[in-house]
This record gives sequence, C-alpha cells and structure tokens, in this order.
Amino acid sequence: MRKVYDIILAHEESKGEDFVRRVEGRGPLFVHVIGTTETAKVPGLSAAGRRPELTDYTPAADAELLLLGSCRCIAGVPATPEGIPTPALITMAALRLADVPALVVNGGAKVRPRAPFIDLGGEAGGDIRSGRAVANVEEVFMMAKVVGESLSKLADYLVVGESVAGGTTTALAVMLAMGVDARGKVSSSMPDNPRELKAKVVEEALRSSKLSFGSLKDEPLEAVARVGDPMMPAFAGLVVGAARRVPVLMAGGTQMGAILAIVRALDGSALDNVAIGTTRWLLSDGTADLRGIVAQVADVPILAADLDFSGSRFEGLRAYERGFVKEGVGAGGAAIAAMAKSGGSISREALLKEVEGLYEDLVLRWR
Amino acid sequence: MRKVYDIILAHEESKGEDFVRRVEGRGPLFVHVIGTTETAKVPGLSAAGRRPELTDYTPAADAELLLLGSCRCIAGVPATPEGIPTPALITMAALRLADVPALVVNGGAKVRPRAPFIDLGGEAGGDIRSGRAVANVEEVFMMAKVVGESLSKLADYLVVGESVAGGTTTALAVMLAMGVDARGKVSSSMPDNPRELKAKVVEEALRSSKLSFGSLKDEPLEAVARVGDPMMPAFAGLVVGAARRVPVLMAGGTQMGAILAIVRALDGSALDNVAIGTTRWLLSDGTADLRGIVAQVADVPILAADLDFSGSRFEGLRAYERGFVKEGVGAGGAAIAAMAKSGGSISREALLKEVEGLYEDLVLRWR
Repeated sequence: MRKVYDIILAHEESKGEDFVRRVEGRGPLFVHVIGTTETAKVPGLSAAGRRPELTDYTPAADAELLLLGSCRCIAGVPATPEGIPTPALITMAALRLADVPALVVNGGAKVRPRAPFIDLGGEAGGDIRSGRAVANVEEVFMMAKVVGESLSKLADYLVVGESVAGGTTTALAVMLAMGVDARGKVSSSMPDNPRELKAKVVEEALRSSKLSFGSLKDEPLEAVARVGDPMMPAFAGLVVGAARRVPVLMAGGTQMGAILAIVRALDGSALDNVAIGTTRWLLSDGTADLRGIVAQVADVPILAADLDFSGSRFEGLRAYERGFVKEGVGAGGAAIAAMAKSGGSISREALLKEVEGLYEDLVLRWR
Repeated sequence: MRKVYDIILAHEESKGEDFVRRVEGRGPLFVHVIGTTETAKVPGLSAAGRRPELTDYTPAADAELLLLGSCRCIAGVPATPEGIPTPALITMAALRLADVPALVVNGGAKVRPRAPFIDLGGEAGGDIRSGRAVANVEEVFMMAKVVGESLSKLADYLVVGESVAGGTTTALAVMLAMGVDARGKVSSSMPDNPRELKAKVVEEALRSSKLSFGSLKDEPLEAVARVGDPMMPAFAGLVVGAARRVPVLMAGGTQMGAILAIVRALDGSALDNVAIGTTRWLLSDGTADLRGIVAQVADVPILAADLDFSGSRFEGLRAYERGFVKEGVGAGGAAIAAMAKSGGSISREALLKEVEGLYEDLVLRWR
C-alpha cells in the first residue's frame, strides 16, 4: 500500500493523502476521551488491565500518563495480564517528540484521573446486558460538542483518541443496533480475539434491550444509552463540534466504526472533514476488518502508522508484533500526527527509540 | 492617562504598551476560573448574588453563561441584590465580537456548572475565620500548572478571569498574611464598600490562624489554605504554567494583588510575562487602590478597558457608572483582548452595543 512518510494510506487512498497534506506541518491538539463500562468485567473479554477489576483504572491511569508522565492511581503503567504495556507509551512518545499538547475529556469513568480533565457530567457505564449502559447520553453529547467547538478555535486540527476497556464489545453492540454489520469484524487487545464471547455478550445485550439489527439506525443516542459506553457520546460530540472548523483525526481501531455511525446519524456533514488514524497492527489483525466496517458507513479515509517494533530491545514491545494490544489511547493517530507535523522527520524508528526510553523508565523500573 | 485604542495604560505605562503591542492581532484563549467560599455568606460582605446563599450559584452560572450563552443552574443571570447584572455580560460580548474561545477551570465550587469544565480535584472553600479555607491547595496548584502549560501551546496568549463571591475579602486576608499592605485598598461589588466588615472578618481569620502581617510571606500555599479561596491556587497555577511560553493577561480587580503575591513567591520569573487587565470602573473606585497594591508586589503593568455605560439605554447598565459591580468574570481583560485582537475596531461603543443586546435577551426577558 502507498505511504506518505511512515503513514499507510489504507483506505480511500486519495482522500487519505489529501487529509495528510492538509495537516502537514500544522499544530494539532490531542484529546484523550476516557470512560468505563461494567461490560469490561466479563471474564476474558478485555485485556486492558491485568485483571478484570483493574480495567476501571486503565483509562484514568492512561490519562495520568499522558498529562503527568507517570500514573498516580496505579503503580507502574496499565498492562495486559501478560504484562504488555499500554499503547499510551506510543502516544506519549509521539506527543513529546512533536511537542503536541494534550487534554483529557471524561465521558464517564468509575475511577477519575488524579490529573486535570474536562468533565462533561457523564457517569460510569453499566453492563450492556442490563439494557442501561450509559446515562445522560444527550447531555454528554451536547457538552462535548461545546468543547469541540471551543477547541477547534485553538488548534489547527484535533486528534481524538480514547481509552475504554471492553470498548470493542460495546462498539459491536452499537454498530449492530445501528445496522452496521460488524459481526466478526471488531478487533481485540489480545492475540486470540475472544470473538465468540463478544458475540454472546452482545447478543444478550440486544435481546435484553429488545433490539434487532438496524432497529436504532436513526437513533444513535438511544443505541448508546442501551448498549454503548460513556466514551461514545463524548467522542462523537467532540467530532461534531470541531469538524465544522478544522480536520479531525479519529484515532482508534474498530471502535471508530461505532463513532462514525453515530456522527453520520447526527451530523453527516462532519464526516467530510475526518479521517481515521490507526496502526499497522490493527490493520494486520486477521480476526478483524476495519475497512469492512468503515466502508459500510461513510467514504472516510483510513490512515495507519506503519509502526514496527520487531527490532526492539524489549520483549514487552516486540509482543506488539504478535498481536498484543494493537491500538488504544489514540496511539496510531498520535504517531501519524507526529509524522505529519514534522514532515516525516519523526519516523517509525525515532518513535520506537522514544518508546523504548519510556519503557525503560516506566515499565522496567517497576518490575 | 495615555490610551492604546480604548485601553488605558494605568500603571507601568511603557511595559503596558509593550504588552498590548505583543498581543495585538493575536489569538487569545479566555480561561474562566471559578470557586466558592463560605466567607461570602457573611451578611453584607458580597453583592455577587441576590442573597448571600445564592453566591454559591454565581460562579457556576457565570460559567454556563460564557460557554452556553445562558444559565442553567439559575433562572436569568447572576445579579446584585439591586438587580444589576453580572459582568459576565461584558465578557460574553467581548468574546463573541472577537471570536475568542473560552474554557472554564473549577478551582473548587460548591455548585458545579452544568457546562463543561476542567476539574483539578479542588473542593469548595470554607469560611476563612475557621482557619481551614481551602483543601488540596498544592495539588490544585500543580494540576493548574499542567493545564497552563498545555494551553500555552494552543493559544497565542491567555486571558485568565475569575468568579468567586467574597473574593476581595479572602484576597485581603492572603495579602496581609503575605506582607502586602492591602488594608483599605481592596474593591467591592457594591457602591458602598463594606470595608469595616471586611477588615473585621479578615482580622478574625488571621487571629484564628495565629497569623500576623507577613508571617506567611514565603508560604503562599499555606496562606491560601488558611485564609484564601479555591480560585487562588488554580489561577496562580495557570499563570505559572503558561507564562513561560506565552503572555498572560490576569483579568480582574484588586484580587489580582493576591495572585501576584502568590506567583511571585512560587515562580517570580513568570511575572515578566504578565499584565493585569481591569476596567476603568475599578480604577475609579475611591475606596480601593489597585495600583497601591500592585506596586508593593511587582513591576507589573495595569491595563484598564475604558468602558463607558453612561449613555446606555438601560438603567441596569448605567448603574455600572455609579460603582455597582465594577469588574469580575474577567470583564476588563476580555474587553482589552477584544480591542487588541481587532486592532481597535472593537471599541467601547461596539462593546456597549453588544452588551445591551445581551441585556435585552438575558435580563429583560426574565423580568
């Protein structure tokens, strides 16, 4: 596939190249949206935490890492049960190298960051099988839209990332409720995607909310309220609020399919000014299909940071090449923004070197 | 006094002119810092609310007004017992005319805005006579500093305003504890400044904390913890965090003396990049002496928006000329920023016209 710098034009190639050219050399703002959902505690569903009950801490810990350089609500950094560290290390490396500022937006998190964050009045999310997944959806969406409008006056463009454990499962549920056939297409933070478990949880969620495929096609906020997670209305609101004035790079994996569907239903014109930014690892996930999801929703380009950790000194980073983690905390989008801002001089090699430094400081030190 | 556009160079004239030239035509960000203190409920102390118990709502309501265009936590807009409306109308008018974005930072408010705000982990303030006025002072200062650093990468400069009822009394207490002789020099939101009452409350506060004049000269955060308010560590942290990279216009009245003293004690170099922005009404207050306060602390210029509401169609606005309200919600600084950004084409006449429109929409409608 064609590349600009170390950015792969993975889908809607010419639109993708156009997006890169528009943001090249410009100053982005990175916005990190956090939320939690009880759904993440289904055993075996999420690897965004060493144990299911620790998934509540992951979004807050990622936020602290980005803003303060270390975590406060946990020791060390978030990791999978195997000890593979959070992709926030990649995000941090990219933001530091390119001197990009970051803000955190709380869509609704059970553990609040001990770091500054923008509060939208959201609450932590419930288990989607209860049919009451997210409270105050419309309020959070409207507040996020206000924030997106303000931020669009400050930065040349926005890069919006997210951290919500269990997020691919909630995304699958919202996409099905909205008529996007994402069955067998969402990715995972594990090398062995627990697809059957996700399908089962989602099926149960849709059943308990009496939803069928596409039955909430035009009611995105209702879909989120029933079977989504609290990151979604915040992320979607930021996109709708900002995209009228500046480009928005939606930084994430297959969860972005749900956000795209929500945005399309609420303000389709916003999609003319967005791209999805992810990682090569996410695209290489044979158990998922981001292009297949996006193509169902809108003609939005996909860019992927061509990261390569195979030559890393550290086993904990080489594991990314074997399908651990893959994406999250806007890692791919932040890497793309750093490459674009620096006109390519921040390469994948430079990023790996910086990530390895952070790994030494923040992971090895705590062993 | 000399003016640039409708900006009075009120103190340290050449530094003030230099400041205006540096920000002329540039894009500011307005940051509104809110907090509440139980001190405001001493009967007769504050006019920032129709009744003492309503002062808890004033900062949140001002924040909602700035971000959403109307209040949500109260009907209408904040007003004095006489019905004179909040200076947030001036701030709103200036930000709208000059297309300046705004963010709200919560230093610690009893009533939280139903609008997006940056949370710093602060809590509402206690009565200064208890000797326990503000919790988590160091934490809030550090978090605000992080925010200031981030925002300084986004905007050409910051305009920081505040809203805290009872704030001149807490400012007097902090200044005395830090050795700034502000006795008889702090202003008021009333035409008849209740100076004796303020002095009595402050005297009692210092006595109960066993403080004497200047005894906490080098311990600003301790002074705030004992006899300050929650706006202070947030405001000071923003200034220290941002001023290394961009100019900061400290938008307020005599309370800025306390902030200056705090900033000087924590990072004096920040003061090279700041100015105070206020209103002509504040300077004209014969019961106060902003210059006399500032001159004791640092060689920082004072700029004043030469606003004139004497020709207004509305009695509620003409009252500003008789000493009601005078300043608050960064009104003077926001007006200055609008004038500087527009190269003077946003004049005091243009501002009055916009304020009158807001008065019709937001005040008269609720009568």
